[in-house]
Amino acid sequence: MKIAITGGGGFLGRRLAAMLLTRPEVGSVRLVDTSPIPEFEGDPRVERIRADLLAQGAADSVVAGADVVYHLAAVVSGQAEAEFDLGMGVNLDATRLLLEAARSGRRTPRFVFTSSLAVFGPPLPAVVDDGTAVHPRSSYGAQKAIGELLVSDYSRKGYVDGRAVRLPTVCVRPGKPNAAASGFVSGIIREPLNGLPAACPVPRGLELWLSSPKSAVANLVHAGLLPGEKLGDGRIINLPGIAVSVGEMIESLARVAGPEAAARISFSEDETVRRIVSSWPARFDVTRALGLGFVRDPDFESLIQHYIETEMAPRRP
Amino acid sequence: MKIAITGGGGFLGRRLAAMLLTRPEVGSVRLVDTSPIPEFEGDPRVERIRADLLAQGAADSVVAGADVVYHLAAVVSGQAEAEFDLGMGVNLDATRLLLEAARSGRRTPRFVFTSSLAVFGPPLPAVVDDGTAVHPRSSYGAQKAIGELLVSDYSRKGYVDGRAVRLPTVCVRPGKPNAAASGFVSGIIREPLNGLPAACPVPRGLELWLSSPKSAVANLVHAGLLPGEKLGDGRIINLPGIAVSVGEMIESLARVAGPEAAARISFSEDETVRRIVSSWPARFDVTRALGLGFVRDPDFESLIQHYIETEMAPRRP
Repeated sequence: MKIAITGGGGFLGRRLAAMLLTRPEVGSVRLVDTSPIPEFEGDPRVERIRADLLAQGAADSVVAGADVVYHLAAVVSGQAEAEFDLGMGVNLDATRLLLEAARSGRRTPRFVFTSSLAVFGPPLPAVVDDGTAVHPRSSYGAQKAIGELLVSDYSRKGYVDGRAVRLPTVCVRPGKPNAAASGFVSGIIREPLNGLPAACPVPRGLELWLSSPKSAVANLVHAGLLPGEKLGDGRIINLPGIAVSVGEMIESLARVAGPEAAARISFSEDETVRRIVSSWPARFDVTRALGLGFVRDPDFESLIQHYIETEMAPRRP
Repeated sequence: MKIAITGGGGFLGRRLAAMLLTRPEVGSVRLVDTSPIPEFEGDPRVERIRADLLAQGAADSVVAGADVVYHLAAVVSGQAEAEFDLGMGVNLDATRLLLEAARSGRRTPRFVFTSSLAVFGPPLPAVVDDGTAVHPRSSYGAQKAIGELLVSDYSRKGYVDGRAVRLPTVCVRPGKPNAAASGFVSGIIREPLNGLPAACPVPRGLELWLSSPKSAVANLVHAGLLPGEKLGDGRIINLPGIAVSVGEMIESLARVAGPEAAARISFSEDETVRRIVSSWPARFDVTRALGLGFVRDPDFESLIQHYIETEMAPRRP
């Protein structure tokens, strides 16, 4: 099985590639990103392409020969809000170019599109399910919702075998904060664990819908390997997550790393971030996704533990 | 007030223009269509432009100086299903070009986008409301749903003052059948009234959500004149209609025009039409639309009467 991953140099893309390469079904992985990808040097199964998806012919070179295309490349929520045209280009036009490239190819690939809970916004029911209307309150959410519609219609027409998976907020991400409005969600755990102060831009009572990187990657792998027949017409999937309030996150941090870690968090409301993040739902009915074999984390402490074990523990050279 | 109407030579466009020209607020109307528009010859308030909206500069010339842009031009459901690229071009790309033209202009126009109940599909609740997820089962429906998301996001960003109105199936349309999957809905009333046979491609029990041309045009006028403050964030509106089964339509026809008219209808199932049309909902909660001042027809017989009075009665030369 040949795999292609856009955004293949990104946080999820690299981890997805590594996980796919452990699977016997997977023969090769093509990683495409705008930046050079230092990982997988010398691995003959991995092809690394540096390309702008909007450049002439780029979408064709991503899709060529692939059995499964993972489209992870995106401009994140905060940046898509600040740079509208950039978001429309990368989040909408590039998605369409990839779908067109897949449509015009000789085979009909599976097409995994990473959508987001950011497609939802108020008014929201108490629990979001597959019948809940999207009301995006950010350009990122609108662009992702449009991508879902395209993937669904291209699938219905038989042009691709698509699946659009709505990721929860992924936490705890390592590294520096990015321009996602949800960047603080990882920051308020990661920085205190590393002895640094962290500012929380939203109130303690705000609830979030979260997934560890490990569960998110496992679910992406599953999304690519699941036969299309199991999905039927329902090509949009709310992925499992856990509902946790900011206050509960901080209490978990105190239990895992002590009250002095939790004390490194201060509250400093950011109106733009608060408006976007509080428009997202935190409670989902994911019966369908669990029935399809997607997984979820047991609790928030396991997300902290996962970060400590995979990102902070010393590794053998 | 300066108005621009794409699809201005079409069935609804011409009637909308005529109705708008009776309003004291309306100073001029620009009609844009791909075909020549013979109506309004010599009316100094009316500008008629023949243009392909996808041509370079066309969107700018539509929008220039307009206080209200009505975007009615579309490839209808049956044709968008048969000619996918044409549908994507007209129903999606042209909408985006118009929104971009409006965004880059000196003023922020109202932007009325005609969407459709075809954005919905199974699984459907018993009654569709503002919280119901769209699940389009046609490319037309998908393209209209994407247009709604664009209009909403451009409105949220302040680029336009948009409103996307989901029209019921409009019945009884005069003239020849068009390539809409819903074309038969008018045909099974119009042809028998004119002494002609009509084939019904769906079963008698199928329910439809209908509006007379009169109510549809009145609601489009209202959509253009309604101040944006009344809409708030909710820029997508399920317009009022009436829920009627095919059997009830035929019974109404028999009451209005006699059993011999109803006897001109034969049943000959068309699987493609049945699949598309039966994926549409027929029952809506339109409390919000009625509260905003949108109107609905009293019953199906009034739709037949309206057709007879406006399209069949002899006119003075």
